[in-house]
Amino acid sequence: MDLIAQLRSGLPEEAVLTDPDVTGSYANDMASFCEAGIPAAVVLPRTAEQVQHVMRTATALRVPVVPQGSRTGLSGAANASDGCIVLSLTKMDRILEINPVDRIAVVEPGVINATLSRAVNEHGLYYPPDPSSWEMCSIGGNIGTASGGLCCVKYGVTAEYVLGLDVVLADGRLLQTGRRTAKGVAGYDLTRLFVGSEGSLGIVVRAVLALKPEPPQQLALAAEFPSTDAACAAVCEIMARGHAPSLLELMDRTSIRAVNAMAKMGLPDSTEALLLAAFDTPDPSADLAAVGALCQEAGATEVVPAETAAESDMLLQARRLTLTALEAVKTATMIDDVCVPRSKLADLLNGCAAIAEKYDLTIGVCAHAGDGNTHPTVCFDAADPDESRRARESFDEIMGLGLELGGTITGEHGVGILKKEWLARELGPVSLEMHRGIKQVFDPHGLLNPGKVF
Amino acid sequence: MDLIAQLRSGLPEEAVLTDPDVTGSYANDMASFCEAGIPAAVVLPRTAEQVQHVMRTATALRVPVVPQGSRTGLSGAANASDGCIVLSLTKMDRILEINPVDRIAVVEPGVINATLSRAVNEHGLYYPPDPSSWEMCSIGGNIGTASGGLCCVKYGVTAEYVLGLDVVLADGRLLQTGRRTAKGVAGYDLTRLFVGSEGSLGIVVRAVLALKPEPPQQLALAAEFPSTDAACAAVCEIMARGHAPSLLELMDRTSIRAVNAMAKMGLPDSTEALLLAAFDTPDPSADLAAVGALCQEAGATEVVPAETAAESDMLLQARRLTLTALEAVKTATMIDDVCVPRSKLADLLNGCAAIAEKYDLTIGVCAHAGDGNTHPTVCFDAADPDESRRARESFDEIMGLGLELGGTITGEHGVGILKKEWLARELGPVSLEMHRGIKQVFDPHGLLNPGKVF
Ligand SMILES: Cc1cc2nc3c(=O)[nH]c(=O)nc-3n(C[C@H](O)[C@H](O)[C@H](O)COP(=O)(O)OP(=O)(O)OC[C@H]3O[C@@H](n4cnc5c(N)ncnc54)[C@H](O)[C@@H]3O)c2cc1C
Ligand SMILES: Cc1cc2nc3c(=O)[nH]c(=O)nc-3n(C[C@H](O)[C@H](O)[C@H](O)COP(=O)(O)OP(=O)(O)OC[C@H]3O[C@@H](n4cnc5c(N)ncnc54)[C@H](O)[C@@H]3O)c2cc1C
Repeated sequence: MDLIAQLRSGLPEEAVLTDPDVTGSYANDMASFCEAGIPAAVVLPRTAEQVQHVMRTATALRVPVVPQGSRTGLSGAANASDGCIVLSLTKMDRILEINPVDRIAVVEPGVINATLSRAVNEHGLYYPPDPSSWEMCSIGGNIGTASGGLCCVKYGVTAEYVLGLDVVLADGRLLQTGRRTAKGVAGYDLTRLFVGSEGSLGIVVRAVLALKPEPPQQLALAAEFPSTDAACAAVCEIMARGHAPSLLELMDRTSIRAVNAMAKMGLPDSTEALLLAAFDTPDPSADLAAVGALCQEAGATEVVPAETAAESDMLLQARRLTLTALEAVKTATMIDDVCVPRSKLADLLNGCAAIAEKYDLTIGVCAHAGDGNTHPTVCFDAADPDESRRARESFDEIMGLGLELGGTITGEHGVGILKKEWLARELGPVSLEMHRGIKQVFDPHGLLNPGKVF
Repeated sequence: MDLIAQLRSGLPEEAVLTDPDVTGSYANDMASFCEAGIPAAVVLPRTAEQVQHVMRTATALRVPVVPQGSRTGLSGAANASDGCIVLSLTKMDRILEINPVDRIAVVEPGVINATLSRAVNEHGLYYPPDPSSWEMCSIGGNIGTASGGLCCVKYGVTAEYVLGLDVVLADGRLLQTGRRTAKGVAGYDLTRLFVGSEGSLGIVVRAVLALKPEPPQQLALAAEFPSTDAACAAVCEIMARGHAPSLLELMDRTSIRAVNAMAKMGLPDSTEALLLAAFDTPDPSADLAAVGALCQEAGATEVVPAETAAESDMLLQARRLTLTALEAVKTATMIDDVCVPRSKLADLLNGCAAIAEKYDLTIGVCAHAGDGNTHPTVCFDAADPDESRRARESFDEIMGLGLELGGTITGEHGVGILKKEWLARELGPVSLEMHRGIKQVFDPHGLLNPGKVF
């Protein structure tokens, strides 16, 4: 039996798509510079059993499988390869349980992050991981990439909220990992092994997620600095003094100007860096006052604390517009994701400015500053081969700088295709060998998302 | 060359112990009912290079190696096997770095938990994991077992504080995992794979640990309940209402009576359960008042909030004495470590009472109630074979009950030898096969802590 017939034998008619116009639209995630192939079929299962059927078929016929969530990834990790089965989990989108006493939610992988967040809010609960793509991206994709977001600085990343998983293995068997209890140390932490594995070890079909009580609404301030050094010094001081902001974001002068140009935010042109801090504590105004004072000591020329949630939203608007504004600078962008110890943040930002000059490019940096996680965004004209080459080279040089500063090439976006060579460099040969060994255990025929990660 | 000569060829004289009187004293951790063998040698390295030499020797001669920290483990995971090398990390006990800006500490594995806690306190920082054995146990052992403690209910367990590791593999190669940044998703989460692996995958020789800002000193209350059901209902209500206690502990009537008998605490004999809650929030008295009211609604007969840190300490004293008091009941104890969803806490406690009656034994339960993590402690006379058998059977039956209630056989003490068969039952065959596969990748000759975990 051929692949399509075999797939159809265990799936409803509408779950197997083969029309090339349709399957072609599943070829890519949102990364630039990553090749994508043409899938043999796109499968949209609705149950774990159907996923098992797909994997059994794939193993029997040795066909590669590319798992996909909402394809908002920024590293090509969800890109199709030629002749693969694209396994889209978007139709498995039920929230199965929300339990306020145990503070857990049980979900299928296709649930959209924002949908879950709103659903748990109604029970007075909070699912913290909040990638900026939260209105689009899926929990399965968040688990695949170990997503971060704005509130990580206080609440941590996706990994810290995944308690247990149901995973369909490459051969179609179902593996259960972890638990639904608050604690548990029975055996190896297979749950965490899957988080961030970018679809290379198995298909997540169900997740038990930890929830927090909903915190008070956050209140933000904006502080304008005459230099990035001063802004980064403020970040270090805020963290060293023991503050626990629920958000601590930084925009460099390039980002500020791009936002100004697009949205007429009226930030003064002399501002070299903008720091945004927020607190969701019982008395956020007091925390903002303390942090505002630290900013001033570090050299801030202007500190604007919000007094209402609406004012906070307005202050954060500039940060939210940054990517869109940088995208408007040229025809294309490449978003880097280097994370350094926060004490090295200034070095990274200064380095990025130097790299922009060296390659004669616009590189705007916004950063989850409290975590040292930066998003240097290289703007370039994709139709200009020389500029594209320089963009790629500068992108790489930024990763090199990150590693030199004791950081990592990816704080939250993952490796995918885009950073494969760099991952090998960051990990070194011993770690890489262990990675390959683990991959072999879970996926002996190399069928799951081949060619990605390492 | 024989084993001892080979070991000595790369180690200082005093680092290799072979006197049977001395090596015999390294045979056991603190678990009951676990066999222990006689080591061929005890090695006390001071550097990662020395550990590498030991592992190279062990691999060359195919000699098993049992890593040890302070041997306070409660599952036999650090017990020697016949002819093994005991690799004690206790001399590698330097704190290498404490960094308040990056909020990390870098330590060798032999550092005692309390030593690190105090050292970081001096920088205004906090290392939360606080097993009750904290004055004795080592960070390496905490990582080996993924230790919990009293403050987990708010701050989580050891696993959440390990950012990166240096690990000597079975063949002597050095593997670096993780990072020193706040975030990072480069490759599989090997760091977490080692946390809780009970020395079966490699030797931790260095750890980068995350720190928190030091919270305000906690303030506690004690609430007396006429039934365990009422106390457990209070626990559920406290958590469902979104409170974030820094401690939420429960003692059942057997524990209360044992403590009363030993320390004349004067708790009323009609008390069937004692709940202890603490808050380290900016206004702990307000939180205690709210939680006290919830306790009263749930049926508490008496609620005693502390007004000072000294009063808090006195209230928590009863909980601290529980194990010692239960140990005084008979000649021996077996401490179980079942963790259930907190909504099932009452079912577990009632089940333990029924099991105690069925086997005609004293079983006292104290619990990290906020996490659903219970320590049913079976008291028995080790010289009485029939009672010992009943003790073991009741111990097992409690694990069976925990699994039935959707829980795990071990919330924090680990598997070791004691719970090996039960681990297989909890994990099931597919997970066990993946565990074996991973073990094979890191330790192909099966030399690291053989016979433990699975
Ligand atoms: C505008 C924008 C803003 C963003 N902001 C952030 C941010 O703040 N923080 C951040 O971390 N990321 C951010 N991202 C990146 C991206 O949104 C995240 O990586 C997200 O987690 C991807 O989710 P997805 O559902 O789109 O997954 P996809 O892109 O479809 O897949 C991501 C990876 O997960 C795998 N995968 C998906 N589902 C499963 C499954 N069920 N089982 C196994 N593997 C699976 C895929 O194979 C792939 O490797 C942003 C992206 C955009 C476009
Ligand atoms: C009175 C008492 C109270 C306790 N309270 C708690 C509690 O509240 N919470 C809790 O979780 N536990 C508790 N425990 C259990 C125990 O203290 C913990 O498991 C602790 O983490 C063990 O640390 P250790 O240094 O004694 O390790 P050991 O017992 O020596 O070893 C534990 C495991 O780790 C491995 N190991 C040790 N060092 C290394 C290394 N460097 N590299 C690789 N593997 C290594 C060993 O092989 C073994 O498998 C308690 C024990 C006692 C006696």
